[in-house]
Amino acid sequence: MALIEYADAAPEVRAVFDDIKATRGVADVNNFWKALAVHPPTLKRTWESLKQVMAPGALDPLTKEMLYLAASATAGCAYCTASHTAAAKAKGMTDAMHGELLAVLGMAAETNRLAEALRVPIDPGL
Amino acid sequence: MALIEYADAAPEVRAVFDDIKATRGVADVNNFWKALAVHPPTLKRTWESLKQVMAPGALDPLTKEMLYLAASATAGCAYCTASHTAAAKAKGMTDAMHGELLAVLGMAAETNRLAEALRVPIDPGL
Amino acid sequence: MALIEYADAAPEVRAVFDDIKATRGVADVNNFWKALAVHPPTLKRTWESLKQVMAPGALDPLTKEMLYLAASATAGCAYCTASHTAAAKAKGMTDAMHGELLAVLGMAAETNRLAEALRVPIDPGL
Amino acid sequence: MALIEYADAAPEVRAVFDDIKATRGVADVNNFWKALAVHPPTLKRTWESLKQVMAPGALDPLTKEMLYLAASATAGCAYCTASHTAAAKAKGMTDAMHGELLAVLGMAAETNRLAEALRVPIDPGL
Amino acid sequence: MALIEYADAAPEVRAVFDDIKATRGVADVNNFWKALAVHPPTLKRTWESLKQVMAPGALDPLTKEMLYLAASATAGCAYCTASHTAAAKAKGMTDAMHGELLAVLGMAAETNRLAEALRVPIDPGL
Amino acid sequence: MALIEYADAAPEVRAVFDDIKATRGVADVNNFWKALAVHPPTLKRTWESLKQVMAPGALDPLTKEMLYLAASATAGCAYCTASHTAAAKAKGMTDAMHGELLAVLGMAAETNRLAEALRVPIDPGL
Repeated sequence: MALIEYADAAPEVRAVFDDIKATRGVADVNNFWKALAVHPPTLKRTWESLKQVMAPGALDPLTKEMLYLAASATAGCAYCTASHTAAAKAKGMTDAMHGELLAVLGMAAETNRLAEALRVPIDPGL
Repeated sequence: MALIEYADAAPEVRAVFDDIKATRGVADVNNFWKALAVHPPTLKRTWESLKQVMAPGALDPLTKEMLYLAASATAGCAYCTASHTAAAKAKGMTDAMHGELLAVLGMAAETNRLAEALRVPIDPGL
Repeated sequence: MALIEYADAAPEVRAVFDDIKATRGVADVNNFWKALAVHPPTLKRTWESLKQVMAPGALDPLTKEMLYLAASATAGCAYCTASHTAAAKAKGMTDAMHGELLAVLGMAAETNRLAEALRVPIDPGL
Repeated sequence: MALIEYADAAPEVRAVFDDIKATRGVADVNNFWKALAVHPPTLKRTWESLKQVMAPGALDPLTKEMLYLAASATAGCAYCTASHTAAAKAKGMTDAMHGELLAVLGMAAETNRLAEALRVPIDPGL
Repeated sequence: MALIEYADAAPEVRAVFDDIKATRGVADVNNFWKALAVHPPTLKRTWESLKQVMAPGALDPLTKEMLYLAASATAGCAYCTASHTAAAKAKGMTDAMHGELLAVLGMAAETNRLAEALRVPIDPGL
Repeated sequence: MALIEYADAAPEVRAVFDDIKATRGVADVNNFWKALAVHPPTLKRTWESLKQVMAPGALDPLTKEMLYLAASATAGCAYCTASHTAAAKAKGMTDAMHGELLAVLGMAAETNRLAEALRVPIDPGL
């Protein structure tokens, strides 16, 4: 699996890397973007979508990041779980908040499985 | 698939149903609990765990409910998605918040898939 | 979605349907096989594999059926969960056994999710 | 990812570790519990639920462990698959039983996927 | 779940619906877009991404559509499986091609599960 | 996890390994088959099914391999993603085709999640 570093990147890839670094105030992009650079149109579209989706709105950035983490851990993506756990901590998720998030995810997994195993019919009105 | 109504329930099941109704201030429990009543020990344990996990703590009830919804939709559980969407709305999730939550879930699904398809190595330090 | 009934089936499909009915002692095959009949080579190969896998061996038929149910409910396949719950009951799964199976599946879902969310390293020696 | 060792653990964590060691007759708890110790209430609740669910009942301990393994492998949790394969072997799963369990899981995966891809309607009466 | 019809849609939603209808040469958009219209920014971004991704390129439109179907059926999304099966047929997928696609998906499901259940190490050089 | 090498394999396992090597024109089988050799009947059945499914038919070998890759990456199987990416490249998948395949998988993941989170009803006629 190839990771494309800035020094080796084509101009269109460098432009995306520059925008990521400026938007996030970081010195380098992480591996996800270096891997995605194998297909520049997907790199550019994915970054622009992500930037739009994660901007502050009706939900604050920390809540969005914790939702992203919840989705990533539920999908079983180890890379995503690692990077979004770090991102959520950087945005203010404390150990106590992390612990409660884990408890909710575990509980959801259990009740989701039970609801499917029992084929529970959706309640009228929902 | 059998749903056990209060009138037909054994005393140990009624006790759980009574606690759910009192805790939530509702007139009847929803189908999940009526289905789970086929196995009273699992009904009781699941409810007691859920009550503990969803109590206010370092995360507020609305955030917990949105995380539960994120996990349920990601797991593809239709019953769970329906019931936790309704619960999140009852706790204050507006249409704008719901729309942004959906956008985060969709974006997470896309980047999770890409990270796995590219087998991106976890960044050093994470 | 087309379901192919015996009366409308080609000879190669009828041959598989006949073998399913004879092996299971049933008057008609269920919808899964009628749907799969749209592609006769897949119908034939799938049935022959299933017959071999589910034959008595080091595991008895009821244990195999409960494992099949566990896999189906975990995968979230509603059709499969319905049909293998019925099959397991037909092979002797009591309500108490079903309740305990559900409890194990729910517990596994919860601990699986927690292990992935925490990225727990595999213990030495395993 | 932090693993909390007994020597560094708070009293409430040590109490859970002690109960795990006594119940299972082992010298140390495995990594799952050391990781979960970052959130003591979740550690305690999860262990108590697991102990209740895995106790002998209508299903014997080996059958429960094989169901746990089936759920874990189906969910794609590498840690869980490793630890429950080892646990099932410790409880008496032979190589022949393991091979047949794998065959059932593989077959279930195939037919689950086909049933979903074909959107097979649930048979009347199920 | 609300579906927003063209007659009731805001101008920004109508603009997207108009583009979908013009691009695809259809009289009405399907339910996915009517549901997504609850959050206009997500509607617009999703459609524009989809239009870019599904345009002819190094892969022809039928191959892209069959890959979309493979991903949707594997993810167990019933709506997506239904709509992309129809789309693939409209683009030229014959019954024989559909049958072989199903066979590949089923086989992949089986070997994926076996590889995970056995925790097979990735071959050197891959 | 044991990998069974040719030199240590029983005759029935060697026969399958020989057929894999002859069919594929390779000097050694990959780890998947060496792992599966712990259960010879599953090894033999799986290989024979795979050989039948992947043979040229209404779909060409490259398209089948890309569908296999799509299913494997969607299922989140790292081993399978690695091996089928390599196999698809060996059969002619260029970097541009790989990039577009990734884009389709990512887009499918996003719209699949949105369709499930919104519980979109299947369009009439599908």
